[in-house]
Amino acid sequence: MIIVLKPHATREHADELMRRIAALGLRPLYMPGDQRVVLGAIGDERAIESLHLDSDPMVESVKPILAPYKLVGREIHPHDSIVELGRVPAGGGRFTVIAGPCAVETLEQTRATALAVKRSGAHALRGGAYKPRTSPYSFQGLGRAGLEILRAVADETGLPCVTEVVEVADVELVEEFADAFQTGARNMQNFRLLRALGRSQKPVILKRGMAAKVEDLLLAAEYILAEGNANVILCERGITTFETATRNTLDLSAVPVIKQRSHLPVLVDPSHGTGLRELVTPMAKAALACGADGLLVEVHCDPPNALSDGRQSLFPEQFEALMRELRPIAAAVGRVL
Amino acid sequence: MIIVLKPHATREHADELMRRIAALGLRPLYMPGDQRVVLGAIGDERAIESLHLDSDPMVESVKPILAPYKLVGREIHPHDSIVELGRVPAGGGRFTVIAGPCAVETLEQTRATALAVKRSGAHALRGGAYKPRTSPYSFQGLGRAGLEILRAVADETGLPCVTEVVEVADVELVEEFADAFQTGARNMQNFRLLRALGRSQKPVILKRGMAAKVEDLLLAAEYILAEGNANVILCERGITTFETATRNTLDLSAVPVIKQRSHLPVLVDPSHGTGLRELVTPMAKAALACGADGLLVEVHCDPPNALSDGRQSLFPEQFEALMRELRPIAAAVGRVL
Amino acid sequence: MIIVLKPHATREHADELMRRIAALGLRPLYMPGDQRVVLGAIGDERAIESLHLDSDPMVESVKPILAPYKLVGREIHPHDSIVELGRVPAGGGRFTVIAGPCAVETLEQTRATALAVKRSGAHALRGGAYKPRTSPYSFQGLGRAGLEILRAVADETGLPCVTEVVEVADVELVEEFADAFQTGARNMQNFRLLRALGRSQKPVILKRGMAAKVEDLLLAAEYILAEGNANVILCERGITTFETATRNTLDLSAVPVIKQRSHLPVLVDPSHGTGLRELVTPMAKAALACGADGLLVEVHCDPPNALSDGRQSLFPEQFEALMRELRPIAAAVGRVL
Amino acid sequence: MIIVLKPHATREHADELMRRIAALGLRPLYMPGDQRVVLGAIGDERAIESLHLDSDPMVESVKPILAPYKLVGREIHPHDSIVELGRVPAGGGRFTVIAGPCAVETLEQTRATALAVKRSGAHALRGGAYKPRTSPYSFQGLGRAGLEILRAVADETGLPCVTEVVEVADVELVEEFADAFQTGARNMQNFRLLRALGRSQKPVILKRGMAAKVEDLLLAAEYILAEGNANVILCERGITTFETATRNTLDLSAVPVIKQRSHLPVLVDPSHGTGLRELVTPMAKAALACGADGLLVEVHCDPPNALSDGRQSLFPEQFEALMRELRPIAAAVGRVL
Repeated sequence: MIIVLKPHATREHADELMRRIAALGLRPLYMPGDQRVVLGAIGDERAIESLHLDSDPMVESVKPILAPYKLVGREIHPHDSIVELGRVPAGGGRFTVIAGPCAVETLEQTRATALAVKRSGAHALRGGAYKPRTSPYSFQGLGRAGLEILRAVADETGLPCVTEVVEVADVELVEEFADAFQTGARNMQNFRLLRALGRSQKPVILKRGMAAKVEDLLLAAEYILAEGNANVILCERGITTFETATRNTLDLSAVPVIKQRSHLPVLVDPSHGTGLRELVTPMAKAALACGADGLLVEVHCDPPNALSDGRQSLFPEQFEALMRELRPIAAAVGRVL
Repeated sequence: MIIVLKPHATREHADELMRRIAALGLRPLYMPGDQRVVLGAIGDERAIESLHLDSDPMVESVKPILAPYKLVGREIHPHDSIVELGRVPAGGGRFTVIAGPCAVETLEQTRATALAVKRSGAHALRGGAYKPRTSPYSFQGLGRAGLEILRAVADETGLPCVTEVVEVADVELVEEFADAFQTGARNMQNFRLLRALGRSQKPVILKRGMAAKVEDLLLAAEYILAEGNANVILCERGITTFETATRNTLDLSAVPVIKQRSHLPVLVDPSHGTGLRELVTPMAKAALACGADGLLVEVHCDPPNALSDGRQSLFPEQFEALMRELRPIAAAVGRVL
Repeated sequence: MIIVLKPHATREHADELMRRIAALGLRPLYMPGDQRVVLGAIGDERAIESLHLDSDPMVESVKPILAPYKLVGREIHPHDSIVELGRVPAGGGRFTVIAGPCAVETLEQTRATALAVKRSGAHALRGGAYKPRTSPYSFQGLGRAGLEILRAVADETGLPCVTEVVEVADVELVEEFADAFQTGARNMQNFRLLRALGRSQKPVILKRGMAAKVEDLLLAAEYILAEGNANVILCERGITTFETATRNTLDLSAVPVIKQRSHLPVLVDPSHGTGLRELVTPMAKAALACGADGLLVEVHCDPPNALSDGRQSLFPEQFEALMRELRPIAAAVGRVL
Repeated sequence: MIIVLKPHATREHADELMRRIAALGLRPLYMPGDQRVVLGAIGDERAIESLHLDSDPMVESVKPILAPYKLVGREIHPHDSIVELGRVPAGGGRFTVIAGPCAVETLEQTRATALAVKRSGAHALRGGAYKPRTSPYSFQGLGRAGLEILRAVADETGLPCVTEVVEVADVELVEEFADAFQTGARNMQNFRLLRALGRSQKPVILKRGMAAKVEDLLLAAEYILAEGNANVILCERGITTFETATRNTLDLSAVPVIKQRSHLPVLVDPSHGTGLRELVTPMAKAALACGADGLLVEVHCDPPNALSDGRQSLFPEQFEALMRELRPIAAAVGRVL
């Protein structure tokens, strides 16, 4: 429920109402605005009838939250959220570029790539220490050693770092090393993991599942917010379709659809979204033009010898060109790159 | 086969070779370049062995055309094609906007819409006289009367006009009235229709089928070129996926994929591609940013009362805003709008 | 609208009502039952209000047809339809097997295949004279010569024959030679062709489009029935999905879904549905078990040398084994094979 | 690698070779046959060259395993596997029916359902204690209390029980209570969970992911076998497609495709595969007819009041009818039900 208080309602009134909402087993939300305070009540909405809010003299109006995603939707949170990745904000008019290798392989490879992407203007570093791979016989990531390398390179370059977490048991360890969590497409509906991330306060980049509708993605994000962590960034990374010219089909229309429905920032991953290095630059530009809040892009200092996803990783000079080409488009659409 | 002639080969040599190619039942192509003449031979490539071109003193090299789409691919035609829609060129650095109602309903509605889109900067007018509809009980278009209206409005406004043709028997009639044909997604593999359009010289805007891979689209275009009409413009208009938030999933990555493989211009139809008016503007911008050669966009002078597709048609003032917002992006990516 | 007449209503009453329905521009239907006569009125249902049927003394009840497919649905036609293919019935408890080559190639090949499938118990012969092919450079069928071969072999073997029609202009010719039309997946929404077939009285096997929902298929059939031809047999032949192990994904659940909604018979084409000879037999058995009314199956006397679809064509001995294995299953599910 | 030993090779030879294979960091497999012993070497196949097996006098032939799934494929394990669920075998000519409620809700509901399905001939009981739900506000299962109920009912009825595990941390607990694990479609590529299950010896029913190709499913199973647990049963449960008439599209052709490639048993879940109670029976029959080794089917003693998936749960009398109808089909296809 969304409960709009009258202009003269005091903080005490609001607190009292929130106590009563909580007593019903619902989750109360306090959302002060310029003119009025708005309260939220998340949970079984039928319970709230017993509060007789309609006849409460401090309540102006009560209306149900229509969307199934209560905290993620714009109904109770109409303004765009800004999420801080380390000192780097995502959302709110900026275009935030997170770049780096698919996997942390060695200190040298990670450092060389990080220095290159920083030089070209990337705002944050990505790199996987835990790699979910289709085959058990493929490189699975360096684990803790990879996290240590990533942290060292992040500290050296001053770039905040983002890395994937694949399992509840690793959340604490990853939190110790990374500035933000990333969850992969295969884990979008690993609800235990989402809940565990909801109990952290570090940002979470939640990637859309390969067969997930936008609504499923928003409900997955709701799991994280419902546990108390509002620092969620969504990420479109391609869906599964019949087309085989690309690894996935990058669904850029998801960006404006999400923007209409949710206040959370949205990134686009053109690397996984296409699977082909040659398509990363045009699709990155398109992502900026259609309103995405940034990119998650794979760059490797030596793509042909990458241990994973080399085919879709940009060479450093391609990334530099990409950043150069993004700038005039950002200016044209009124975004800060 | 691609047959590169030596620098000193004369036109007579080329003609003689083309006669011998034709005599084998293959289709000869003459492609003069700056330095050398290149010949093509389209058809069963095994036949060409009997010509012993390897030992021909005027032939520098012979290589097979690897792609299954011979005339559509870049192997024998590396440079971008420009197709003339009436006096309006598509391709070659321009961004060509074709706008108008889904269906021609009345003279007034068509004229009002055409005047509005012209004022905002559209280059050509679209409008359907034959409407393929899922249900037999829906409005099916005005037929010949619709063509007459369209022609009258095109003449009045000076905008070249594009309209859908759905059947071989109508090709001649449509050709009489329209400046360019359009084929719908449901007819992308109506090969008889494609062949009939291949025997015209008017341009054809060929829309991608809902379940067609890019390769299928290029092969469908090959049907038209193989009959002799090279004036083909491809159009991405959304594919069928599991996502229900949009009517189709607009596959913008098809644009750079097609650009790599084919010399033909590529439009994007963000109206059918999304099915939602609110998504047309962001996806139109994305189409420009990722390299499309133009748009096919539905605009109606009164969308709530449109006889078809009102939900995805822009209001005239939205179209005007779209054109205004496209201009700085066009400048940023070096395109002429 | 469905208009149930009172038990004592006479034929004259019914005729008078049908005249009044027709006068409104709606299509009247006469459906006599055991107890009562039921009338249908197909078209813009709002018009019917002016008849004030509620107060007509001969009318027991009036209710709208809820499904968008009026003639195809079970609301006005609750009992299963039986469609006659030549002298062979499809629907109504039988399991009708239509077998033969993908394409008519020669008289010898067609005769050899027809004799083999007849010997094994097939009820009808299939064979294409017009082949829609993805590439313009593939074998496109023998055309009229193919129709002549098919007719000759059908007459010789006594098997009714089914062949694909791809174009309005060919309908008359195909009708002259074949016992039933078949339309391909690519033409499921070629509405002109559907209308033309609706003006014939020969049966039409309407194949589901690759990206068509069941509802789209039923609406496509409605085009044929709305023109007056009720002899329609639906055919599930696989849909486009992300899976690449099979050519298409055979959606057998479409069979019981269609059976719930429509009175028309439903065949399954396991050859196109899977694209792999090894999968034809198991999927044919599954089709029988889940309630399909028959099969459309490709058999070739020499699959490795077939001009099209050899990979999915059964060898004659495989077809014989299939028929042998289908018999006990048919008995188990109470069907006549 | 597959290493076929000569007929006279002794067990000592085999052991010596296996020691040398293990010393290279590869996993040795011992597979005695009627005529010859076959060894396997799983891992980086290039390493094995250093063993010079070609010149080993006890080695008859050496060939690579072509499929990416080494242990799951038929190359080194050509015969069908039988997996024991408690005392109930799956695979090897039987048709094993696992039935029960979507979720364990109460002792009474679980017991009533179990008694009903047992009476009708089910071989094992299913019931979820941990329910992955799209929305955080839906019923998420009883957890440990649910496991206790399931065990009690399994012991009372003598039916072995199967339940879903969603998280590595729960594996030990679930193993304590259940006779077999089940993993859900959303967790098919939760590789940590797969590895943890691979370290158990209890059977695992691995459900196909909604966007997973058959090859992806086989590779997911390889994760479990590679850790040492060969008791894996695969389960087709519907894939994500554009069709909305059913919840998912049940891909029955996956059954014969898997049977060709893998020795593991394959179940079909027609409940999730269709999402509609009315379709469960026809699709269950089709599953039996096309070669599946059994069913995973949802039955509830009171579907309209089920806390989850009521729409797709059979009433007990429907399940009884299903079992009755399956028996003659099983006889027709030579299977033991």
